[in-house]
Amino acid sequence: MQYHVDGTLVPASDATVSVRDRGFMYGDAAFETLRAYGGEVFEWEAHRERLQRTADTLGFGDAVPDDLHDRVRETLAANDLDEAYVKLSVTRGVQPGKLTPAEEVDPTVVVIVKELPRGGTVGQSVWSGPATVQTVRTRRIPDESMPADAKTHNYLDGILARLELRRARTDDYQADECLVRDVEGNVTEGATSNVFFVDDGVLKTPSTDLPLLPGITRSVVFDLAREEGFPVETGEYDVADVRAADEAFLTNSTWEIRPVESVDGTELDRGPMTKLLARLYDELVERRHYG
Amino acid sequence: MQYHVDGTLVPASDATVSVRDRGFMYGDAAFETLRAYGGEVFEWEAHRERLQRTADTLGFGDAVPDDLHDRVRETLAANDLDEAYVKLSVTRGVQPGKLTPAEEVDPTVVVIVKELPRGGTVGQSVWSGPATVQTVRTRRIPDESMPADAKTHNYLDGILARLELRRARTDDYQADECLVRDVEGNVTEGATSNVFFVDDGVLKTPSTDLPLLPGITRSVVFDLAREEGFPVETGEYDVADVRAADEAFLTNSTWEIRPVESVDGTELDRGPMTKLLARLYDELVERRHYG
Repeated sequence: MQYHVDGTLVPASDATVSVRDRGFMYGDAAFETLRAYGGEVFEWEAHRERLQRTADTLGFGDAVPDDLHDRVRETLAANDLDEAYVKLSVTRGVQPGKLTPAEEVDPTVVVIVKELPRGGTVGQSVWSGPATVQTVRTRRIPDESMPADAKTHNYLDGILARLELRRARTDDYQADECLVRDVEGNVTEGATSNVFFVDDGVLKTPSTDLPLLPGITRSVVFDLAREEGFPVETGEYDVADVRAADEAFLTNSTWEIRPVESVDGTELDRGPMTKLLARLYDELVERRHYG
Repeated sequence: MQYHVDGTLVPASDATVSVRDRGFMYGDAAFETLRAYGGEVFEWEAHRERLQRTADTLGFGDAVPDDLHDRVRETLAANDLDEAYVKLSVTRGVQPGKLTPAEEVDPTVVVIVKELPRGGTVGQSVWSGPATVQTVRTRRIPDESMPADAKTHNYLDGILARLELRRARTDDYQADECLVRDVEGNVTEGATSNVFFVDDGVLKTPSTDLPLLPGITRSVVFDLAREEGFPVETGEYDVADVRAADEAFLTNSTWEIRPVESVDGTELDRGPMTKLLARLYDELVERRHYG
């Protein structure tokens, strides 16, 4: 496997960053997780835009290189990969030894790839089954402390949430994803996914007024639901709303649309709206990437 | 300069970590900033204990190596440094590509050093003058989201706070440190320091019931103040309390005790309690490290 580091393709085993890179020292970096189908990244423009917004929030927006798409394509090509997971990171690079960032930024750009199964209508899911979801104690960081729409290398909040699942694991029970609430108790998202649920024919998901990452897949699902005429509502919901749902699913770029099997031990039906949206998503990918 | 990376001394220019190290990908790492005087680290045991606590919080406490002190000493010796800044990091290392950490941990240990002036009674401060302090909008992350007593590579909260200072900078005005409040508005700490102030002869500092990092220097100052019979109070204070103080100072391992010149433009006196505590601190260092 070859990765792209700081403008160069290198063997994965030689792919490193300086211990003085701010991405390492402080998690001072923006990233995106993307999925390539048939050799091309899905929703590139949306990911590029979100990466830019994160870099703007972190104050190094001007330093984001123009050729990111090329670097991703070069990495896929070098590994002869058409179907892949892609992680693209842009850090503030190495700077003089102060916490306050210097204005002049020489960013470090890293592209990591990994093979995935084919997507679309004849592809297969990366997950082996529907998700078991569990509410955790760890709360989403409020926007006043860290804007939730910035996707950064500061990911310990999600890791602490996932550690709670690991600690609760038994021989019979293993949760796949967390339900993370904000400090007020509203459901926000999973550790790496957005959450949707269906209540009496209405598709519901937490509002971006709450601290959550507005997922690219979440946005694609909105489009698909609206095209089908499904009513969509964003708002504030608590855990009981999700547990009482008719059906529920999680979204992210790798999982696409993953049905939820249970929430805190309460089983949910694998319902028709989830199945239809997943099929529409597959058809969209098929049309765009394998047509 | 030579750094210590994963058990080996390497030239600083070759000191790197894998792009798949979780310290880089997620800031999934514990660290300590230490100061060496006369070739030995100040308050090693307290730093070692705090590092352990951070690693315990992150769920890899068992993987912290026993020989950290040796690695720090080897790095100082290799660079022929007696007076130094030391940054010691322990990351969760490289693991299979999942956010949920694997139980088996092969940590990455990094030691970075930099020369500093001599400390103690005949030494000099690393700062060129008293600190200009400014209140920022960015709030400290609440404990429910991220335990504040864990010192991790997730440092964007402090960086966003410092960026506010950078943006407010003019030809005549440049703040050195932030006053960061929690979401309720209580003063907690600076971006890299604890804050103390003197009100009517009482030395006051925010309580660890609030989300703040309990500094090693903060704790040494408590001991010095108590030995002198100065009344010390920890509690909840707002910005107005600090602005109205008779004197104020900041503490961290590198700055030691740094007087505050002004808070949000309000000038403070450089008072006798700050001066005495700074002298006592210097005497303690002199006695322990150059005696």
